[in-house]
Amino acid sequence: MAFGWMDEQAELRRRAGLVRTLRPRPADSPLLDLASNDYLGLTHHPEIAEGAAEAARTWGGGSTGSRLVTGTTELHTELERELAGFCGFEAALVFSSGYAANLAAVTALAPHGSLIVSDAGNHASLIDGCRLARGTTQVVGHADPEAVRKALQTHEDSAATAVVVSDTVFSVDGDAAPLAELAAACRERGAGLLVDDAHGLGVLGEGGRGAAHAAGLAGADDVVVTATLSKSLGSQGGVVLGPARVIEHLVNAARTFIFDTGLAPAAAGAALAALRLLRREPERAARARAVAAELHARLTAAGHEAVRPDAAVVSVRAPSPEGAVQWAADCRTAGLAVGCFRPPSVPDGISRLRLTARADLSEAQIERAVRVIGETRP
Amino acid sequence: MAFGWMDEQAELRRRAGLVRTLRPRPADSPLLDLASNDYLGLTHHPEIAEGAAEAARTWGGGSTGSRLVTGTTELHTELERELAGFCGFEAALVFSSGYAANLAAVTALAPHGSLIVSDAGNHASLIDGCRLARGTTQVVGHADPEAVRKALQTHEDSAATAVVVSDTVFSVDGDAAPLAELAAACRERGAGLLVDDAHGLGVLGEGGRGAAHAAGLAGADDVVVTATLSKSLGSQGGVVLGPARVIEHLVNAARTFIFDTGLAPAAAGAALAALRLLRREPERAARARAVAAELHARLTAAGHEAVRPDAAVVSVRAPSPEGAVQWAADCRTAGLAVGCFRPPSVPDGISRLRLTARADLSEAQIERAVRVIGETRP
Repeated sequence: MAFGWMDEQAELRRRAGLVRTLRPRPADSPLLDLASNDYLGLTHHPEIAEGAAEAARTWGGGSTGSRLVTGTTELHTELERELAGFCGFEAALVFSSGYAANLAAVTALAPHGSLIVSDAGNHASLIDGCRLARGTTQVVGHADPEAVRKALQTHEDSAATAVVVSDTVFSVDGDAAPLAELAAACRERGAGLLVDDAHGLGVLGEGGRGAAHAAGLAGADDVVVTATLSKSLGSQGGVVLGPARVIEHLVNAARTFIFDTGLAPAAAGAALAALRLLRREPERAARARAVAAELHARLTAAGHEAVRPDAAVVSVRAPSPEGAVQWAADCRTAGLAVGCFRPPSVPDGISRLRLTARADLSEAQIERAVRVIGETRP
Repeated sequence: MAFGWMDEQAELRRRAGLVRTLRPRPADSPLLDLASNDYLGLTHHPEIAEGAAEAARTWGGGSTGSRLVTGTTELHTELERELAGFCGFEAALVFSSGYAANLAAVTALAPHGSLIVSDAGNHASLIDGCRLARGTTQVVGHADPEAVRKALQTHEDSAATAVVVSDTVFSVDGDAAPLAELAAACRERGAGLLVDDAHGLGVLGEGGRGAAHAAGLAGADDVVVTATLSKSLGSQGGVVLGPARVIEHLVNAARTFIFDTGLAPAAAGAALAALRLLRREPERAARARAVAAELHARLTAAGHEAVRPDAAVVSVRAPSPEGAVQWAADCRTAGLAVGCFRPPSVPDGISRLRLTARADLSEAQIERAVRVIGETRP
C-alpha cells in the first residue's frame, strides 16, 4: 500500500525513543522560556505587534505574488534598504524564510564548475543549498581555516568560482566561526565567503550589527551574509546582504526568490519595527551576550559541562540521548522551557540541553533557570 | 575577484533582454490587478487584516523557534485542524511557504530506492524537491497518464515506494492535471500520488475545497496534497494535507519542517480568517472560475489565442519574448497589471501574458481589462 512503508520507520523511531511530537503552546504559557530564539525579547514587544498589524492593514494579509510579479511592495524595499544600511552592506534581499535565503544564496553563488567549501557543522538549510547547487561541495572539519585553505587549493579552475560557506554562530553549541581567518583563507585564493548570521544578527557586533560587522567584513565585495528575521528581529523571513552585483544576480537567478511568494507584509512590518527598536536601544545586543555569559558562569560553577558562549546560545552537555530528553522534560515540569538536541539533529552525536539567553531575562529568572537545571540534572 | 563572474552573466542577460527588475508597488496602486494570485480577492479584506493583527497582538510577531521547539502555538494547531477539515483530509501540517511544503513533501515521500514520476510542467519547488530527494526521478510528458503508467512499470522494487508528483493546476497555462487518471495509474501499482494544489485551493471543488476534493480523492490513504496559504487565502505559508501517518512522518523526517522557524502567527491568523470567510461565502470559488471563463470567452472572441482556463489562470499567447514584455508594459501604462511569462520561466519556450481572475472583479473591470489587452496587442 502507498505510504505503508512509513509505519515501519515509525516503529523503528518508537523503539529507539526518537519520536518527535509537536507541543502546541498557549498564548499565556507559564513556562520560563530559555528555548526560543527570541534573543532580544522583541517578539512580544507591543511595537513589533503593532508593526505587523499596521502593515497588514495597509498592505493586506499577503504579498499576493512572487517578488518579480506583484509581491514587492514599497515596504519590502524599505526593509531591505534599512537592513543593508544597519548591517553595513550595499544591498539586501528579503525572503520568506532564512531557509529560502540560504538555498538561494548557496545555489546562486555556486554555479556549474564551482567549488563549495562547507563547514561540517553547518545548518541544514546550507547543506540543502549545497545539495541543490550545481557546484561541487567539499565538506571540511568544523571551524578549521587550515582545512578550508587546503580545500581551496584543490580548486584548479581559476576562471570558475569558489565559495566558502559557514554559519557565523553554530546553532547547536553556540560557538562562533573564525570569520577573520576564513576571510583571509578566501582572499588568498580570490574565493568568496558566504556566512549565515542567523544567530549573530542582533546579538554580535556594535549594537547587534552582526558577526560580519564585528569582524570588519561588512560591505566587503567578497562577502555575502544571510540572516533570519525570525530570531533577534522577532518576526519571520530571511535576508541576503551583500554587494549590489550579488543581489542583482539573486534576483535573476535564485529559484527560491523567483518562484516563491514574497514575504507577507505583516512579517516585513514586524521586522522593520524590531530593527528600528534595536537602533534606538542598541544595548539589547550586549545584554543578550551578558545574560549568556552569566548563564554559562553559573552553570559551570554548579558543575555542569557547558560550552563558553560566543553569542546567546549556551549548550549544556547531557549524559545520553535519553538523559537529555528526561532532563528537558523535568525542566518543563518545573516550569522551565529548554531546548533538547540529540542524534540525529546533532553533528557529533553528543546530546545536550540548549539554552538561549534573552536580553530581557531578569536576574531572578536567570537564577531560577540555573536552579531548575541543577535540581533536574539526571 | 570573488563574484566577478556575475558581471559577465549580467552582461549576457542585458544583451538578451532578459534582465529581471523589481518594481515596488505603493499601497494605493491605481493599477487594475490581473497579475496577483489573490484569486478570491481576500488579501485586502478587513477580516483578513484583522486576523493577522489580532494574531500578532496575541502571539507575538514571530513563532520564536522551529516547530518542534517553541514554534508551535495553539493557533498553528487550530489552523491545521481547520485546513484538514475543510479539504477533507485526516491531518495537515503548516509550513512557512508553499515552497518549503513542497520540498518537505517530495523529499519525505521519496526515500532512497524510491521512484518519483514528475510531470514536465511541474513548479520549481516540486522540481527542487525531486533534486533534493534520495529517490530517483523520472520526468514524464505534461499531463500524460499513459506516460506515468509506463514510468511506474519500470519501478521493479515493489518493497520500495513510488510516488507520482504533479501540480493540480499548472501555473503558466492554468490547465488542470488529469487527477482521476493519475490516481488510477497510481493505484494499479500501489504508488502514492502527491499533488500541489497551490492554484486549486479556494478555486476548485465544492466551495473551494480544492482539486483533490473535486476529483473525489480527498482523504484517500494514498493521496497527499500540498497547497499555499498565500494565494486564495491571502496570507503566507504552505500546507501539506494527507493521512495522519504521512503527517507524522513529515514531523519526524522533513528537513524544511524540522529546521525552519514556524510560520509567523500573523500569517496563521490571516489564513485562518480567510478560511472561515470562505466557509461563510463559498460562492467566491465559483465566482473566480466564472470570471476566468468570461475573460477567456471575451479574449478569444476578440481574436486572442487564450488557453481555456480550468481554474482562475488565463494564459494568452504572445508573439515573442520581446512582444510579451512590450505588451505587458503597454498594459501597465494603460493602468492594467498582467503577468508576463517568457523563457526561461516557461517550460515550452512560448511567451505569454498571464491573467488571473479574481472573484471580486466587476463586470466593468473585466471589460476594461479585455479592452486594454486588445488595444495594446503587439
